[in-house]
Amino acid sequence: MTLTTTDPRSASTTDTGIPATTDEQVAAITAAAVDAFRELRSRSRGWRAGLLLALADGLEARRSDLVATAQSETGLAEARLGGELTRTVFQLRLFAEAVAEGGYLEAIIDHAGDTPLGPGPDVRRILVPIGPVAVFGSSNFPFAFSVPGGDTASALAAGNPVVVKAHGSHPLTSRAAFDALVDASAAYGAPHGTLGIVFGQAGGATLVADPRIAAVGFTGSLATGRILLDIIENRERPIPFYGELSSLNPFIVTAGAADARGDAIADGLFTSFTGSAGQLCTKPGIAFLPAGAESLVATLVERAQATAAQPLLNERIFRAFGVIRERLVADGRARVLVEPRPGDDGFTMTPGILEVDATDVTEAVAEEAFGPLIVLARYDDLEDVRSALRAVPDSLTATLHSEPDELAGLAPLVEDLQDLSGRIVFDGYPTGVRVSWGQHHGGPWPATNTAHTSIGVTAIRRFLRPIAWQDAPESVLPEELRDAYTGVPRRVDGVLTLATLG
Amino acid sequence: MTLTTTDPRSASTTDTGIPATTDEQVAAITAAAVDAFRELRSRSRGWRAGLLLALADGLEARRSDLVATAQSETGLAEARLGGELTRTVFQLRLFAEAVAEGGYLEAIIDHAGDTPLGPGPDVRRILVPIGPVAVFGSSNFPFAFSVPGGDTASALAAGNPVVVKAHGSHPLTSRAAFDALVDASAAYGAPHGTLGIVFGQAGGATLVADPRIAAVGFTGSLATGRILLDIIENRERPIPFYGELSSLNPFIVTAGAADARGDAIADGLFTSFTGSAGQLCTKPGIAFLPAGAESLVATLVERAQATAAQPLLNERIFRAFGVIRERLVADGRARVLVEPRPGDDGFTMTPGILEVDATDVTEAVAEEAFGPLIVLARYDDLEDVRSALRAVPDSLTATLHSEPDELAGLAPLVEDLQDLSGRIVFDGYPTGVRVSWGQHHGGPWPATNTAHTSIGVTAIRRFLRPIAWQDAPESVLPEELRDAYTGVPRRVDGVLTLATLG
Repeated sequence: MTLTTTDPRSASTTDTGIPATTDEQVAAITAAAVDAFRELRSRSRGWRAGLLLALADGLEARRSDLVATAQSETGLAEARLGGELTRTVFQLRLFAEAVAEGGYLEAIIDHAGDTPLGPGPDVRRILVPIGPVAVFGSSNFPFAFSVPGGDTASALAAGNPVVVKAHGSHPLTSRAAFDALVDASAAYGAPHGTLGIVFGQAGGATLVADPRIAAVGFTGSLATGRILLDIIENRERPIPFYGELSSLNPFIVTAGAADARGDAIADGLFTSFTGSAGQLCTKPGIAFLPAGAESLVATLVERAQATAAQPLLNERIFRAFGVIRERLVADGRARVLVEPRPGDDGFTMTPGILEVDATDVTEAVAEEAFGPLIVLARYDDLEDVRSALRAVPDSLTATLHSEPDELAGLAPLVEDLQDLSGRIVFDGYPTGVRVSWGQHHGGPWPATNTAHTSIGVTAIRRFLRPIAWQDAPESVLPEELRDAYTGVPRRVDGVLTLATLG
Repeated sequence: MTLTTTDPRSASTTDTGIPATTDEQVAAITAAAVDAFRELRSRSRGWRAGLLLALADGLEARRSDLVATAQSETGLAEARLGGELTRTVFQLRLFAEAVAEGGYLEAIIDHAGDTPLGPGPDVRRILVPIGPVAVFGSSNFPFAFSVPGGDTASALAAGNPVVVKAHGSHPLTSRAAFDALVDASAAYGAPHGTLGIVFGQAGGATLVADPRIAAVGFTGSLATGRILLDIIENRERPIPFYGELSSLNPFIVTAGAADARGDAIADGLFTSFTGSAGQLCTKPGIAFLPAGAESLVATLVERAQATAAQPLLNERIFRAFGVIRERLVADGRARVLVEPRPGDDGFTMTPGILEVDATDVTEAVAEEAFGPLIVLARYDDLEDVRSALRAVPDSLTATLHSEPDELAGLAPLVEDLQDLSGRIVFDGYPTGVRVSWGQHHGGPWPATNTAHTSIGVTAIRRFLRPIAWQDAPESVLPEELRDAYTGVPRRVDGVLTLATLG
C-alpha cells in the first residue's frame, strides 16, 4: 500500500509511491535508534551543537524545493511557508546555542560535608538524554512542528535519536525534509539511526507501543492525542506523552481599548484569526468585546466579507469545520454575522464570524473550530467575562487589550488568565509565537497534558532525565560535573555559579 | 467508622477514635485548599520561606511526642525515628533556603527585539504553583515521606496548598504531625486550607479523583500506585502523578574490591540491607558478588544469624515478605543461606540471605522483598553481571564497589548503570539518602514514573508550571520578572545572570 497526497487547493489526489511503514520496518527503525543512542552519548555537546547547525544548513540548502512541495500539499501561502522554514532553521540554531551554553544540563554539585544528619557524601546531578523519541508531525506546520520541527530539534539537542511519524497530509514534504536532514547528518558524521521516519497511522501506533521508545512528542487533535495516550497507558513501561492538543485562546478587549484603538484591534484580530486560514493552535477562537464596540465589529465583518476563500489543509479539517460551525449555531447558540462559505475549488473556505452574548457563553459555544472562524462574545460588564471564561476550556494563550488607566481594576481578571492559560499576551496577538529562550507554549489541560513547553529553549527539558552520581571518581563523571570544569553554569554547594571561559 | 492502629512489636490493636474521612469532608477540604491557593499567591517568597521555617520549628517543638507516637505505630527504633524527624525538619529548612534564593523560578526575560523572523515581542517566563496537591504518606517513613515529608515541603515551597492522605499504618502519628503543622501555620498566619488531611482509603481515592486536585505525590507500592494511576486516567482532566513505587537497587562488588576490603563491605552491606528492617526504598535487594568472595559472604551470614528479629511495619508487609520469600526460593530459584524467621511477638522478622548464580538471575529472583532480605548473585565474569542486570527492573539506585585500577575496564558497566538507575553510588551504600540541592531520588520505571525527583531541592519542580508574559506592563508582572529586580538568578536575552544584593 502506498500513500496518496492531495492538493487542498484543487482536491486532486495523486499517489506518492511512498509505502506505509510495516511493523517489521518500525521495529528495525527503533532498533537502529537504540544503537544510535549508545553512539550519540559518546559525542560531546560541541559535536551535537554542530549537528544541529548542519541540519539547519541542510534544510536551508533545499529551501525552494521544500517550500514548493509543502505548498502543493498544504495550500498554505508561499510567504507563510518560507517564514515557517526560516523559523524551523532558526530554532535548530537556537538549540545549538543552548547546547553549547550548557545551562540546560542543570548541573549541581554538592561536595561531601557535614550536615545536620551527619557526614554527607558527595552528590552530583546532571540531566541526561532519555533515549529514542517519537515525534508526531502536525498537519498545520509542515516544517516547524513536523519532521524538522521543534520536537525533533529539542529531542536531538538533548542527545536523543528521533523517529518521526510523518503526518498523512503531507507525505512528500515529510520525505523531502527527512532526506534533507538525513543527508546533512550523514555528511556530518552522525550515526545511522539518529533519525528515522514512519509513514502511515498503523506504523505510528506501533511506534508508540514500541518498548524502545522513551517519549512521544505530539502536536494535533485532542482525539488523536487520546488514542496515543491509550496506547501509552497500555504499555508495560509508561513513557511521557507531550501532547499539544487543543486551544480556544480567549481574547479580551476592554471598553477603553475598544474606544482608543478599535480599528487597529480589528485589523490585528482579523489577521490573527484568519492567518493560515485560521489553522493555528494559538488562533483566537473567542473574542470578548464590549457592548459598545460596534465599529470594531463592523470592521471585522467588512474584512471577512471581502476575503476570498482560502484552502484548508485537508478534507478532514474542511469537513470538521462545517460540522463544528453547525454545532456552534445549533439551537440559536450563536448568531451568524458572517457565514463562512466554501470556495469553488478544493477544500477552500471564507472566514466566518459568529456572535453570542457573554452571559450565554457555554461549553457548547466554546468549541475550537480549526479554521477561519471566530465567536464574538459581547459583554456589558467584565465580571460577565470572568464568569464566561469558566465555560472556556483552558488554553495555550489568553490575550488582553486594555488601556493603562484600566490596569489596576483588571487585577482579578489577569489572575484568572494565569489560571487558564500558559501565555498571557498584552495588547497584541497570540499567533506568531516567538521562538526564544523564555517562550512557553503549553497550558493547562486540554491545551496540553504537561507542565512543559513545545516551543522555546526549555522544550529540551522534556527529553532529559536527571541522574545523580554519589562519591564518583572524577574519571567516570561527565566532564561538566568534574571539579575543575567551568564551561557551564552550575550550582555548587547551593550557590549558582556562571561558566567562565577557558 | 473509626480507624485502628496496631503496634507491630506486639500486634496489639487499639481504636484511634479517628473517623474515616467522608466524601463530603474531602470535598470541603479541597474547597478550602482552593481558597487557600488564591490567598497564598498574594504572599511573597519571603513569607513562604518563613512559613517553612515555622513548620520546621513546630515539628521540632513536639519532637518527643512525635517520635514516641511513631515508635508505637511503626516499631522503628527511637534513634532511627529521631534521625528521620531531624531530616524532615532539615528539608523544610532547605526548601525555605531555596525559596528565598529563587533560582527554582527559572526566570527568563527575552526583551523585544529583531529576530530572523522579524520584530519579536517581549517574552518573560516564570514558574508558578499549580494548585492543591495531594500527598500520599508512606508506611516506612512516618515523617520524611508522610504528613510533614518531602512532598509536602516541596509542594508548599512551590506555593501550593497540600492535602495529605494519612497512611493507614500510622494514623496517630499522622494526626500528631498534622496538628503540629497546622498549629504552626495558623500561628504564622497561613490561610485556613493551606494544609488538609484525609484518613482512610476511600477518602484517598475520592481525593485523587477530585477535579480541584492539581497533582499527586505518592511513595508506596507499585500495586497501589497503579490503582491511583487508574483513577487519574479516568479523570476528565489528567494530572501529574509523581509516584515512587518499587526498587531493587542492584549492588555490585568487583573482585578487586572484595579482595581489598571485603570485610568492610560486608559490614556496610549488612547495615544497608537490614537497617529499618530492610524497609527502605533504596535497600540493596540484590548484590552481585564475585565467585571468590567467600569471606565477605561468610561475614554477611554470621551477622544475619546473630541478629534478633526486628518488627516490620505492619501485618500486610509481614505477610507479603513471607510470600515473596517463598516465591524467590520456589523451584530452586535461589538457595537459602540464612532463613529469615518470624520472632516471638508481633510482626517481627530476622534477616534472610538467599544466593543464586548470576547466570541464573531472572525476573523471578529480581522481585523486591520489602524487608530484611538480600539475594546474593555470584558471578565469575562481569559480563555475566551485565547480562543479569537486564532481568533486574530499573531502580532508584545502583551501587558499584571497585578499586581504582579496575575503573577503566568498568566503563561499559557504568554506562549500563546510568540506563537502569537514577543514582549511581560508588564504594558506598544507597540507603541514607542525602537531602541536598543536587540529590536525585527517581529512576526509570518501575522505580518511578517520571523524570522528577522526590528528594532534594529540585523536587519543587514537580509542583510548578511555566507561564509566559508577552508585552506585559511592568505593574502586572511578578516582581521577579521586572527589569529592575535583581533578587533572583535570571536568564536575560539568553545570558544567565546571578542575583545581586539590594
